[in-house]
Amino acid sequence: MAAPRKVVELFYDVVSPYSWLGFEVLCRYKHVWNMELRLRPALLGGVMQGSGNKPPALVPNKFAYMSKDLSRLREYFAVPLSFPADPFEVMFKKGSLAAMRYVTAVAESGGASEADVEKVSRELWMRIWSRNEDITLATSLSEAGLKAGLPASEVEECLQLASSQKIKDKLKSATQEALDLGAFGFPLSVCHIDGKKEVFFGADRFELMAHCLGEKWLGPQPTKPTAKM
Amino acid sequence: MAAPRKVVELFYDVVSPYSWLGFEVLCRYKHVWNMELRLRPALLGGVMQGSGNKPPALVPNKFAYMSKDLSRLREYFAVPLSFPADPFEVMFKKGSLAAMRYVTAVAESGGASEADVEKVSRELWMRIWSRNEDITLATSLSEAGLKAGLPASEVEECLQLASSQKIKDKLKSATQEALDLGAFGFPLSVCHIDGKKEVFFGADRFELMAHCLGEKWLGPQPTKPTAKM
Repeated sequence: MAAPRKVVELFYDVVSPYSWLGFEVLCRYKHVWNMELRLRPALLGGVMQGSGNKPPALVPNKFAYMSKDLSRLREYFAVPLSFPADPFEVMFKKGSLAAMRYVTAVAESGGASEADVEKVSRELWMRIWSRNEDITLATSLSEAGLKAGLPASEVEECLQLASSQKIKDKLKSATQEALDLGAFGFPLSVCHIDGKKEVFFGADRFELMAHCLGEKWLGPQPTKPTAKM
Repeated sequence: MAAPRKVVELFYDVVSPYSWLGFEVLCRYKHVWNMELRLRPALLGGVMQGSGNKPPALVPNKFAYMSKDLSRLREYFAVPLSFPADPFEVMFKKGSLAAMRYVTAVAESGGASEADVEKVSRELWMRIWSRNEDITLATSLSEAGLKAGLPASEVEECLQLASSQKIKDKLKSATQEALDLGAFGFPLSVCHIDGKKEVFFGADRFELMAHCLGEKWLGPQPTKPTAKM
């Protein structure tokens, strides 16, 4: 009898670069760890406000470290991260409300699959955290959807849906669920292990997560052949 | 010709549990990575104040996560961490000024070696972060010194030295050096690589540090035989 599939939920927001690292690593490990990865788009701004946490970028030494850390992780994780021209404008003024409502709409739309949610999320990260492009305008979201391979009609439907009360409420409730799980930032990974939820914050607990899941951590690029063992 | 030894500095404070994890891991890797580990006792309170950072424990969700995270890491890192009965009293009211002056005195005293600094630091962590014991009174510091194997005369000399202006200034300057390196918390590891300083914060960048040092990360217990490969 095959071992039951592990369920891991990932709460994330495309405004968060560490969420992108967490997202890519878990997507790469989906088959390696034989897990069902449930993507849970949510709003980082809501989590910061709800938990009373302050963005790390507001402490100058933390911001400088974050830049350095991300540039090292970019290479080590092989994720094409690049700081936006004005990270404060992008992170704190423009934010990600429209983008995360759009991702939520894709997730809730009848026509799109879980793979579509993954692709659309990645396209949005590519815009904001790799190519210094906007993620607030309808044309930006539309472009991301098309690049992700959604048919034009589906993109249009998701854009419409994104401004509905149903989707606004859905994003709110996902954000509240993350807060109830103890979130104070993203990414937040929830591993369902023996009927219990083990919660991990950040993109630096994969080795521990593997240990808890009874799996092996093979580094951030498990599917790339390694030079020698 | 043997490869030159790598130099890694570790800035730490015994009031910080993540510093303890970082300290134990780097002590275990000293020979595995053939590095000269320079222990740099400094004052976390000074770093928080100087960088404008706030202790993570002040955000309730962060504090709850920290407890859970540390209890998982305790087992995975095999470090006998245990929360003090009143962590807020211990971390924020009592603090570690006397203890870190004492460790600095041990480091500066002619009679003690680098190995003594390591042992005394570990004994202080055992007191505050394992056995719920005081680290503010002279008798507590004395006990830690004796348990670490220092002769009674050396312990006495270090206690005297700890209240001298020279040691107060030394601790201040080590703390300032950490701030100048970009610290906003501890542990802070500084790897000297090709004449450059690569700075890592926290006890969760060892895999990346190994990568930067051209070494292998073998998990937090590299010297313990693993079950099977």
